[in-house]
Amino acid sequence: MAAANEAKTILDRLGVPAAAWGEGLPTRSPIDGSLGAPVRETGDIESVIARSATAFAAWKRLPAPRRGELVRLFGEELRAAKNDLAALVTLEAGKVTSEGLGEVQEMIDICDFAVGLSRQLYGLTLASERPGHHMRETWQPLGPVLVISAFNFPVAVWAWNACLALVCGDPVIWKPSEKTPMTALATQAIFERALTRFGDAPDGLSQVVIGGREAGETLAADARIPLVSATGSTRMGREVAQTVAARLGRSLLELGGNNAMIVAPSADLDLAVRAVAFSAVGTAGQRCTTLRRLFVHQSVAGQFAERLTKAYDSLPVGDPREPGVLVGPLIDEAAYDAFRASVDQGAKEGVLIVGGERLDRPGVYVKPALIGMGTAGQTDLVKHETFAPILYMFAYENFDEAIEMQNAVPQGLSSCVFTDSVREAEQFLSAWGSDCGIANVNIGPSGAEIGGAFGGEKDTGGGRESGSDAWKAYMRRQTQTVNFSRDLPLAQGVKFDV
Amino acid sequence: MAAANEAKTILDRLGVPAAAWGEGLPTRSPIDGSLGAPVRETGDIESVIARSATAFAAWKRLPAPRRGELVRLFGEELRAAKNDLAALVTLEAGKVTSEGLGEVQEMIDICDFAVGLSRQLYGLTLASERPGHHMRETWQPLGPVLVISAFNFPVAVWAWNACLALVCGDPVIWKPSEKTPMTALATQAIFERALTRFGDAPDGLSQVVIGGREAGETLAADARIPLVSATGSTRMGREVAQTVAARLGRSLLELGGNNAMIVAPSADLDLAVRAVAFSAVGTAGQRCTTLRRLFVHQSVAGQFAERLTKAYDSLPVGDPREPGVLVGPLIDEAAYDAFRASVDQGAKEGVLIVGGERLDRPGVYVKPALIGMGTAGQTDLVKHETFAPILYMFAYENFDEAIEMQNAVPQGLSSCVFTDSVREAEQFLSAWGSDCGIANVNIGPSGAEIGGAFGGEKDTGGGRESGSDAWKAYMRRQTQTVNFSRDLPLAQGVKFDV
Amino acid sequence: MAAANEAKTILDRLGVPAAAWGEGLPTRSPIDGSLGAPVRETGDIESVIARSATAFAAWKRLPAPRRGELVRLFGEELRAAKNDLAALVTLEAGKVTSEGLGEVQEMIDICDFAVGLSRQLYGLTLASERPGHHMRETWQPLGPVLVISAFNFPVAVWAWNACLALVCGDPVIWKPSEKTPMTALATQAIFERALTRFGDAPDGLSQVVIGGREAGETLAADARIPLVSATGSTRMGREVAQTVAARLGRSLLELGGNNAMIVAPSADLDLAVRAVAFSAVGTAGQRCTTLRRLFVHQSVAGQFAERLTKAYDSLPVGDPREPGVLVGPLIDEAAYDAFRASVDQGAKEGVLIVGGERLDRPGVYVKPALIGMGTAGQTDLVKHETFAPILYMFAYENFDEAIEMQNAVPQGLSSCVFTDSVREAEQFLSAWGSDCGIANVNIGPSGAEIGGAFGGEKDTGGGRESGSDAWKAYMRRQTQTVNFSRDLPLAQGVKFDV
Amino acid sequence: MAAANEAKTILDRLGVPAAAWGEGLPTRSPIDGSLGAPVRETGDIESVIARSATAFAAWKRLPAPRRGELVRLFGEELRAAKNDLAALVTLEAGKVTSEGLGEVQEMIDICDFAVGLSRQLYGLTLASERPGHHMRETWQPLGPVLVISAFNFPVAVWAWNACLALVCGDPVIWKPSEKTPMTALATQAIFERALTRFGDAPDGLSQVVIGGREAGETLAADARIPLVSATGSTRMGREVAQTVAARLGRSLLELGGNNAMIVAPSADLDLAVRAVAFSAVGTAGQRCTTLRRLFVHQSVAGQFAERLTKAYDSLPVGDPREPGVLVGPLIDEAAYDAFRASVDQGAKEGVLIVGGERLDRPGVYVKPALIGMGTAGQTDLVKHETFAPILYMFAYENFDEAIEMQNAVPQGLSSCVFTDSVREAEQFLSAWGSDCGIANVNIGPSGAEIGGAFGGEKDTGGGRESGSDAWKAYMRRQTQTVNFSRDLPLAQGVKFDV
Repeated sequence: MAAANEAKTILDRLGVPAAAWGEGLPTRSPIDGSLGAPVRETGDIESVIARSATAFAAWKRLPAPRRGELVRLFGEELRAAKNDLAALVTLEAGKVTSEGLGEVQEMIDICDFAVGLSRQLYGLTLASERPGHHMRETWQPLGPVLVISAFNFPVAVWAWNACLALVCGDPVIWKPSEKTPMTALATQAIFERALTRFGDAPDGLSQVVIGGREAGETLAADARIPLVSATGSTRMGREVAQTVAARLGRSLLELGGNNAMIVAPSADLDLAVRAVAFSAVGTAGQRCTTLRRLFVHQSVAGQFAERLTKAYDSLPVGDPREPGVLVGPLIDEAAYDAFRASVDQGAKEGVLIVGGERLDRPGVYVKPALIGMGTAGQTDLVKHETFAPILYMFAYENFDEAIEMQNAVPQGLSSCVFTDSVREAEQFLSAWGSDCGIANVNIGPSGAEIGGAFGGEKDTGGGRESGSDAWKAYMRRQTQTVNFSRDLPLAQGVKFDV
Repeated sequence: MAAANEAKTILDRLGVPAAAWGEGLPTRSPIDGSLGAPVRETGDIESVIARSATAFAAWKRLPAPRRGELVRLFGEELRAAKNDLAALVTLEAGKVTSEGLGEVQEMIDICDFAVGLSRQLYGLTLASERPGHHMRETWQPLGPVLVISAFNFPVAVWAWNACLALVCGDPVIWKPSEKTPMTALATQAIFERALTRFGDAPDGLSQVVIGGREAGETLAADARIPLVSATGSTRMGREVAQTVAARLGRSLLELGGNNAMIVAPSADLDLAVRAVAFSAVGTAGQRCTTLRRLFVHQSVAGQFAERLTKAYDSLPVGDPREPGVLVGPLIDEAAYDAFRASVDQGAKEGVLIVGGERLDRPGVYVKPALIGMGTAGQTDLVKHETFAPILYMFAYENFDEAIEMQNAVPQGLSSCVFTDSVREAEQFLSAWGSDCGIANVNIGPSGAEIGGAFGGEKDTGGGRESGSDAWKAYMRRQTQTVNFSRDLPLAQGVKFDV
Repeated sequence: MAAANEAKTILDRLGVPAAAWGEGLPTRSPIDGSLGAPVRETGDIESVIARSATAFAAWKRLPAPRRGELVRLFGEELRAAKNDLAALVTLEAGKVTSEGLGEVQEMIDICDFAVGLSRQLYGLTLASERPGHHMRETWQPLGPVLVISAFNFPVAVWAWNACLALVCGDPVIWKPSEKTPMTALATQAIFERALTRFGDAPDGLSQVVIGGREAGETLAADARIPLVSATGSTRMGREVAQTVAARLGRSLLELGGNNAMIVAPSADLDLAVRAVAFSAVGTAGQRCTTLRRLFVHQSVAGQFAERLTKAYDSLPVGDPREPGVLVGPLIDEAAYDAFRASVDQGAKEGVLIVGGERLDRPGVYVKPALIGMGTAGQTDLVKHETFAPILYMFAYENFDEAIEMQNAVPQGLSSCVFTDSVREAEQFLSAWGSDCGIANVNIGPSGAEIGGAFGGEKDTGGGRESGSDAWKAYMRRQTQTVNFSRDLPLAQGVKFDV
Repeated sequence: MAAANEAKTILDRLGVPAAAWGEGLPTRSPIDGSLGAPVRETGDIESVIARSATAFAAWKRLPAPRRGELVRLFGEELRAAKNDLAALVTLEAGKVTSEGLGEVQEMIDICDFAVGLSRQLYGLTLASERPGHHMRETWQPLGPVLVISAFNFPVAVWAWNACLALVCGDPVIWKPSEKTPMTALATQAIFERALTRFGDAPDGLSQVVIGGREAGETLAADARIPLVSATGSTRMGREVAQTVAARLGRSLLELGGNNAMIVAPSADLDLAVRAVAFSAVGTAGQRCTTLRRLFVHQSVAGQFAERLTKAYDSLPVGDPREPGVLVGPLIDEAAYDAFRASVDQGAKEGVLIVGGERLDRPGVYVKPALIGMGTAGQTDLVKHETFAPILYMFAYENFDEAIEMQNAVPQGLSSCVFTDSVREAEQFLSAWGSDCGIANVNIGPSGAEIGGAFGGEKDTGGGRESGSDAWKAYMRRQTQTVNFSRDLPLAQGVKFDV
């Protein structure tokens, strides 16, 4: 059975309604390039927004722990549907099975985390300078949240946003990637199971908008949506940011990365090779946290390149449903074109050590490319994020220089160092170390836990999602002062007696 | 002596260098409209930015408590120069003496607060899901911060930003209002006293850019300045936000307010009248937190209007340097034009109860206007922020409706209720109460303490300055994970064995 | 069937092993006084402690989110066994059905909360004054935790402690009240279901010690148990505190309360009457948060007493399993003796308005007593906590005086005010208001949410359990500083050059 | 001039009143053993406590930022009197000049920190599970705080406590060591300068009780003093803890340490030698954080011992006022006896490598002793804290074993490792690493910054002072819930309808 049809079967099983299908976006599996039935485009976006605004009025009045109960039930439903949804992720986004399961696990984890938050959402009580006054800072629900997600994490990123938003009192409107409408519909169906069990949630609490770029623009420009959380390319993010800024809304941006690893002389090379492999070729190099630049100390650069070449040589590329396969397909032909162009250019600027070929089979399957750049500087090619499995390898002489190179790109998402030196590790994590939002020691740049804040600086867009206090982006902060005295003292000792 | 010359004398005493004067911005006192010597415009903005970036490289390496020491010394210098600087605020911005002193006190307060922060700047250590892993979240210095400030708080708002920025490891570039260059130069001179005592601060740590709108635009567009903190009109904010968004920078916006008070039947009317007076006419109605809309329960509306009229009638308007004067001048003729137009229009839409006249003397002095709107809805006039002492008074029937009216404007800065009812007060502070960033009970909307976060939602721009965790805007968050085991487990249980 | 036998049937169904029964503590139901099979006393306490210490060595190494997974599974098992366990609470502690269910719900809630915590357990990263230094504060597992619980919350209090302790990395030893061993065994059986599903938890992670006071003393004195969390009488707490202090261990004490309500003139009397009823007679007055003292403003004291009398008159006392019954039995004859003595003494010092009689049926059933004290001062009788449904009612003249009386007892657990006045409410919550650990407005003193910290001051013992940062009591704080520079600067600028 | 007379001169200059002198405690300088005029003992402790309780009633009502202003002024006065107070520390406690200055700097630092806190003292607002309810956690002033301090930090430890207590709203009663009454009187005089400038502080806000152990006991047993913060020996702490526990008060204990350093093969031995020297012999080994045990990896043990021996050989022992001297006197003859006995016993159990002699001059001057223990286990001698400069050195084979030895003593204050290995460093800081309250990497165990929480576990007493959230010990936590709805829902869904 063609992969696209296999996906349809799962969607039916999950209860995606027949009405979801119709004229609109084509569905497609990168596994074999097969096309499935088209998914109906959302016609009336105005109604979607209006419904969300109405839902907000009701939802924000429910106590947060009650809202958390909905997310808890959603977590239960995800646990029950884990295999189905993971299979869909594989079918529509092309991830290998373990990664598909991991992505759904991430949704489950964020549910647990959000449930815990639902009894916290901590504000502050503060010491007031005025006698007989109490000061507090409270976090209130914000309003409808638009989630624009990308194909490469077709469900987890939405869940990061949605679970926090829901607990925070906000309805959600989801505009998934045009490339992955099916996983969105499936997730919505699973969410509706939780809604049914929950009982009294308002209509329109979570809605999916199927559509293209225009739909996204219409949504992003609407002032009734105070927060737009967008994941995708830097180009897209720049546009969304300006659209939202023009109406003084709030953006939460997770854009491109150009993530690096430094391998120091004291590194555990076994670990480092494995970390490179996972983070450079996992998800076929289509993660925002994919490793794209490698700086190896010259004393170990030779042997490291050798071991890496060996690892690359043995990488099982193929159908992501098959056990043992580690590298699945690129998402589409456009991705291949970008891969091709970058590899070819890389081969000119440096040396193509291994990989770069396309496999002769339906779908876009390539051998991950490892390109040696020696001690060269970083060219425009290297500074640009090509969303494909290409790794540029450099040799470095001293650690300060390695950090400088790591930082010398426009993006600022993830970074890592492999070292057993306290001095190097802590410097990397210091104010004069990595300038990225994520900095790891003896871990690749990819694969974050949900408990930490996820996101990065510079062209990566500055947003933070998931753990820590990322929930604050979904709420409105209010500074409250209550005077319970019989006087009216002014702050800073100002006198004003009428 | 003309007020502008008086200002010059103080600047000389504070040690503003002769080089500061020259072709450029005119200086002017709203007290008598007198013009002083022009202040030299900053020619080479590129150098300013470059110097700031260089200063950052050094400053971020100093331990934060050491950086705090500079801010502590600055606080000492401010204490020593308090009267001079306050007098300048009066001369250049037209504030009455007590408010001028209050503004400098606010600078001093934020110094104390920032010094305390300098040993905190707390990040987190977090529980990792992987054995032998440590997770941390650390806040790092961000880079040069541009502060665009408005004429009405010519020094305090800069201090809010600068003291936090400096402690956080960031150099500051200050673009003050074209209307208040002198207070900026004076503040810089005082800051330099602290710098001298401090010793080893890098050159260019704090710089003032004298110039107009174009200078602001050049600065805001520069990618070397990761944060732009701008205070001013919504129109200005919208432009800055888009400029900064286009380069994926960070904006901290404090824009217009349209602040309301609800007076409930159980209110202490004595307090309420005094609170209205201070917050509606203080600073001649030129605060972003000025009270502009008043909703009085119909059962007390009559007597409240009477008492308010009496209070308005007796307001001492005049030279802000004179003891007893509570209402000083508007900043300039343009401000008067806006006042005039709004009062006239208000008189058509409602009833001009008291005030509205201009005094016949040099400078722009007006009698604050109180306009009765009865039970009418809020027109465009009312929904617009006129930066002058005009108060629109409405009567309301029930509390829910009053909250709804309070929220039904584009701005979302400050709000308050006068009531002795727990139910009303807490509803006002609830998720279905005021939608503003500041919500007070039995206090006017104006006059915040520095310990709380200051700012508002919607067209107010969403930024938060001063207390609470506002300092985080001046830093870069980094999620760090350290693997100290001999394994390489992946999050979410993903398996990837090369 | 006698209630004690009914309990046995449930225990069997829940899988309590046959070995649990044998020579030892008698089991008993206060519903009818029936005795069940005795429960085997734990002979070898030394082994229990040793096993716990061994379990600690393994459990502390598991990542906290993994430990949270056990608690999540426990929550699932509690949901599944909710009715059974609640029925047992009714049978063994005599609570009415709704309260029994509420108690189990509390266990479930704390599971959800603890799971959320398992990815937090936040410590701090801090700004160091020394260049090239990083400072952090981390929370580490503490060691075996002893939980001594009382009969009146036979399972929830253990769960508060155990769920936090387990997530924090600590094994638990439970010494339940001699009066409620059966609910402890049932809870343990349910916990073991979760353990089985979890898989790799160490042996001895949670153990129940069946025994009397001596067993508690042996455990409390053991230095291998760094934390003793004890709930019960002030007398017991004082002993435990000294025992633990002698070995410099940590105590978390939840002791007696003597909780008051103030009813102000503006109070919603409907709510207040209902709140009094629930909090004074719920659990037959055997909660540590039971309302024991009532201060009513003299202007409403008359009508309030009337309404209260009516409510007391209609209170359904009887078998707690029967629908509609609100007041079940006292725990035993000793409780009755204390009730009798206090009511008789109260009738001498004041006026017995209603209640005080014992019902003629098996088990100890009494009509809750309402005793009017007029404007008298508080005698020793009133200042003493009698663990039974007796409410002393006073009239007060002004609010300051009412607060003073509320505070003038040795205990400091819970307190409340019914008022619609902002001034009164906020004063009650101020530094010069209630001195208790819990202070409520328009809510009775009883029935806390798990999200807040639970506990009180003075003779209540000072401990805090459940929500907020109560988890810190179960961990060890470590201040860490890492020098990654090549120098050795000393704090405070000390010089010491060898 | 005899040192004791020199001290008197300074006290006079600082304005210690003549009434302070009289029958009572002798004053004495360890520098030359000279005796000064006796200091009058506090006769009427009851009055002291009563005055403190009265001061509390007033002080707690002042806004915390206002209380902070007093502490800020105190900081200014300390800066002005720094040299005098430091000289006194040298004269009365025998510290070398740099350490005396460092101790006063620590007081100044905590002033700055406390001032910052005075606008924080953050509690929480929390999400309530009940509709129309607000939950908050507020921190309220606690009451009079007793500070019992030890001779070795005669002023800093009091300042840690007092500055936090004052900002938190608590009066302070200080019972200094019998060995250092003069520094206490001097500090009080400096504090009173701040009080005078402050203006409206209540009488008795800070009081010094001069007296012996009995005075301490009387104070510790008094229920009007909710918090006793005691620094000193484990024996003393155990007694205080029990006394306070018997009245269910709160203890904050900073007791003995037995601090270790691990020197790993990758350690920077230069740094390590210097760190050992400062932390083992600084303050003549009379710090609670003094290094007492040294575990050196066998591969470097030989060379490390050599270098250390050389360093010890060259240690300048002598009058602490003299420039260059690093090791001053022991506090008294009793200290010498303990030193002598331990060194002699150590020489039997191991090898006395260097030091141990007494210098032939007035006062107790000894050469710090370095005792080699080889690979032996830790005997009772080693497990006991001798408050003198004795260092036991061991060789270790593997890192796990070194950590185990480090932890295998009753005390748990400070610890450190010198290593450049990430794996070792992070393990040391992990849940299976050091069990101490302080754990450092590449820093000695001694010399903490005030921004971190200071204190330790096990026999060290569990208290935390100074930075982080140590201020919470000085406050009373209150969980507040406000119902602003018209219903009375119960937590956990309990139903109770009268």
